[in-house]
Amino acid sequence: MHPAHARVLLEGPPGPDGTPLRVPVTRVALTDGSTFDRYTTAGPGSDPEVGLPPLRTPWLDARGDTAPYEGRATRLRDDGPAAVRRGEVRTQWRGERRAPRRALPGRRPTQLHLARQGVVTTEMAYAAAREGCDPELVRSEVAAGRAIVPANVNHPELEPMVIGRRFLVKVNANIGNSAVTSSVAEEVEKLTWAVTWGADTVMDLSTGDDIHTTREWVVRNSPVPIGTVPLYQALEKVGGDAAALSWEVYRDTVVEQCEQGVDYMTVHAGVLLEHVPLTADRVTGIVSRGGSIMAGWCLAHHEQNFLHTHFDELCELLAAYDVSFSLGDGLRPGSVADANDAAQLAELRTLADLTVRAWEHDVQVMVEGPGHVPLDLVEENVRLQQEWCHGAPFYTLGPLATDVAPGYDHITSAIGAASIAMHGTAMLCYVTPKEHLGLPDRDDVKTGVVTYKLCAHAADVAKGHPRAREWDDALSRARFEFRWHDQFALSLDPVTAQALHDETLPAEAAKTAHFCSMCGPRFCSMRISHDVRERFAGMQEKSREFVDLGGTVYVDPR
Amino acid sequence: MHPAHARVLLEGPPGPDGTPLRVPVTRVALTDGSTFDRYTTAGPGSDPEVGLPPLRTPWLDARGDTAPYEGRATRLRDDGPAAVRRGEVRTQWRGERRAPRRALPGRRPTQLHLARQGVVTTEMAYAAAREGCDPELVRSEVAAGRAIVPANVNHPELEPMVIGRRFLVKVNANIGNSAVTSSVAEEVEKLTWAVTWGADTVMDLSTGDDIHTTREWVVRNSPVPIGTVPLYQALEKVGGDAAALSWEVYRDTVVEQCEQGVDYMTVHAGVLLEHVPLTADRVTGIVSRGGSIMAGWCLAHHEQNFLHTHFDELCELLAAYDVSFSLGDGLRPGSVADANDAAQLAELRTLADLTVRAWEHDVQVMVEGPGHVPLDLVEENVRLQQEWCHGAPFYTLGPLATDVAPGYDHITSAIGAASIAMHGTAMLCYVTPKEHLGLPDRDDVKTGVVTYKLCAHAADVAKGHPRAREWDDALSRARFEFRWHDQFALSLDPVTAQALHDETLPAEAAKTAHFCSMCGPRFCSMRISHDVRERFAGMQEKSREFVDLGGTVYVDPR
Repeated sequence: MHPAHARVLLEGPPGPDGTPLRVPVTRVALTDGSTFDRYTTAGPGSDPEVGLPPLRTPWLDARGDTAPYEGRATRLRDDGPAAVRRGEVRTQWRGERRAPRRALPGRRPTQLHLARQGVVTTEMAYAAAREGCDPELVRSEVAAGRAIVPANVNHPELEPMVIGRRFLVKVNANIGNSAVTSSVAEEVEKLTWAVTWGADTVMDLSTGDDIHTTREWVVRNSPVPIGTVPLYQALEKVGGDAAALSWEVYRDTVVEQCEQGVDYMTVHAGVLLEHVPLTADRVTGIVSRGGSIMAGWCLAHHEQNFLHTHFDELCELLAAYDVSFSLGDGLRPGSVADANDAAQLAELRTLADLTVRAWEHDVQVMVEGPGHVPLDLVEENVRLQQEWCHGAPFYTLGPLATDVAPGYDHITSAIGAASIAMHGTAMLCYVTPKEHLGLPDRDDVKTGVVTYKLCAHAADVAKGHPRAREWDDALSRARFEFRWHDQFALSLDPVTAQALHDETLPAEAAKTAHFCSMCGPRFCSMRISHDVRERFAGMQEKSREFVDLGGTVYVDPR
Repeated sequence: MHPAHARVLLEGPPGPDGTPLRVPVTRVALTDGSTFDRYTTAGPGSDPEVGLPPLRTPWLDARGDTAPYEGRATRLRDDGPAAVRRGEVRTQWRGERRAPRRALPGRRPTQLHLARQGVVTTEMAYAAAREGCDPELVRSEVAAGRAIVPANVNHPELEPMVIGRRFLVKVNANIGNSAVTSSVAEEVEKLTWAVTWGADTVMDLSTGDDIHTTREWVVRNSPVPIGTVPLYQALEKVGGDAAALSWEVYRDTVVEQCEQGVDYMTVHAGVLLEHVPLTADRVTGIVSRGGSIMAGWCLAHHEQNFLHTHFDELCELLAAYDVSFSLGDGLRPGSVADANDAAQLAELRTLADLTVRAWEHDVQVMVEGPGHVPLDLVEENVRLQQEWCHGAPFYTLGPLATDVAPGYDHITSAIGAASIAMHGTAMLCYVTPKEHLGLPDRDDVKTGVVTYKLCAHAADVAKGHPRAREWDDALSRARFEFRWHDQFALSLDPVTAQALHDETLPAEAAKTAHFCSMCGPRFCSMRISHDVRERFAGMQEKSREFVDLGGTVYVDPR
């Protein structure tokens, strides 16, 4: 953490026991003695071996609509290959073993159900305090389906947050090992690193060995909602043969992940058998992993997608744990040539139907979006999604505004991301410089998160979010007043800002100098601008004297 | 140069002597034996001690509206401090000394004048061949003031190009030493480096020692138009005291730079005395160096800006050499708080008036724009500029969509740049990661240029430029077909693309593998998508058989 930054807990609205919730911010100490508070995602910090404290357990106990039960993992012995070996479920805190929870019979422990009943949950109140908005705004937006508070009852470590177009634009970071590289400990470190730089949610997209164990470690150490794509683990369970997938294997995987505490799941239920021919003439076919797996399954069996045929059953399952849907766009365009084509829009129509069906089961929903989209077609994507899906939060991957710059796709996609967020996308999935080329390492994760935080913030400013521009103004004032240390401390990435400044002018004296190495002292526009302002103030003084003296020109009679 | 790239000269329209012009492209050799041609800015390569060959000299001779004369530099002895020491004018090629040219009495050697006369100049024909458009389109856009072909008659080394909203969006890279750092040789290297990565023009913003000599080296080695801000050198000539500036010193500096071959000059003639009070309540005052210098001068003298009062004289001077105006926005916003404010718009009104006045003198004009602008106000900037300035090309610095990310301002500004270019900005001035922090080094120059090339291309795609999307499609096809070498070679930055891929999979075999380290072989959506396509092709075959056999279901009678 930067020396001028501190995690501070502000007093929020009362929690279930009547004592005030304590809601975190990053407090930036400025050199003039004032402070500036920023939204924070970093969490209280954890010992990976122990996990984070279970903040929400008393809230869940007080609500009383869930109860512990003998989870699937304790019933089953290790029943898979190394790739899916379950290990011990580490749902414990300071040695106390914790059984998974689920809904009591006849109860609906989802934020959507409660919001519809008029209940402001502790999670909603907490999220509202972070946003600095009325808790009733969170409740009403969740009730209308226009926002979600992803919060699995088995993820007590979570610091709840809200995703919706009326709130701050959020950023997701993908982590996860692949068959080719990386380890469990590395993934936990990537998680911690991602939230340090501002990731609002993290998706664990592991596909190689130890999927279960990796996820367990990730969830226990995560202060932010965790998303997954259960299909990846299901495929590992059937030895990688898409044709061997079945509803039963998939269902078992979903239960396993619900019990672990995954907060939202990408489900590719919108890829229908009849959509596959629509992709035949595309430049880049199907580029979503989940989409291509399900399309392969549909063709192999010549049957309808089992995620679609079993969708109601899946809804009931997710409702029992308050897991949110992230309806996957399996047919998203993978090149600007394929943007907004028949395949993409046919799937979006299906996702709109599924949104309404999930809502009937009180399950929270967000809808995923592209991908690769030329800048002139970006707005149409969010407009159609918001219209067709009745305002359900949109969650897009970029989109990339051009295909020609591999190695810079965090930037090609930042262009599309800022634009689509300004037009109403609620959450942006980051893209790193390694996109299309390899698996992101620690530096790539940071670059991706910081890039997307600046997109999200640019969109918040453009949307006129009540508190967004305060941050820009605080930093710009520090810049104009040559408070270099404050300028660094207020930066999205203080470390990089200071390092780039210090490359040329490392001396401490340069931190208060009225110039930098860009222009040197003689040409510093800001310094000259101060001189101009002083001169102008002098002119104003003279002008006031003139008016005070009667406003007439005194002519010496001699 | 990348091993798959070659500079190839295509046969263009006939030049002045009837033989075809030879116009450069970068030809990318693909692994299937085909090639892909891209617009190139790199030039033929030069020995800095010799300079580039004077391509345009026979064209200028044939036109016959200019003549050599005894230039200012040969008349004057060294008359300044070290900072402005003139050295020997290096206007020579293979030892042959070259006197500067200017208009013959009564002649107007500007592209605007010639276009208005219906003449398609060799420069226009050359630029059109590079764009792949009809030369008449270039002529008519130049004649209407909606495009410029910046081409000082004393810059024969130039490969002419066109700037205007109907053409490919262009990118400018700023280089230049400051009082704090860098040397002449470094600046020439930065120039060469910038055009290697695609800079369409380069501005030399040197402010420290050896301004004249640096610029001489830069112009003699530049295949792209060179821009300057003469005010910086004028200020050095008066020892850095803005109040000591005068029209005479400024005029002398402009003549000096016209004779050297500068193609366009930023002139801050729009900062009027009465505008200064409008900046008093800004968060960041005046952030343009030129703007703050002229505002300081106006207040110190309580007189109108001498660039404004002498504007017609300045026009006559530039017309004699065909130097284009880049009307500087001295009052551009330096923070999102100050965007689109009264000061900015008052200056834009003045720039609109000056545009018309310059056109009356047959001088080509582009108009500079911001700066820092929230994304929701970006479109208004270009709409107002195009309306008020009668379609004169807009040339913007970003704009940055937020102030909170120093160290990432190439990205915060790429977001605004792509958007403003899509809406009609003709040229983008790059921003490097060092913006607000220090002077860009070689790596920063590259990052800035590549970032802005991808913005410009994204805008070309969004605007539906006839040939823009071909490039995306070629790269995406290579990607979908696992032609990794072709994907790298077609990339805006092949070196970085391949380096990022090779971080995880360096083996040559991985260059044809049907996966990468992102997902590994089992989860490669593109590989699965190929399987799906094959299966689907099989289905289509069966379906055709079915139809061919009469389209009825055969029921075995047994």
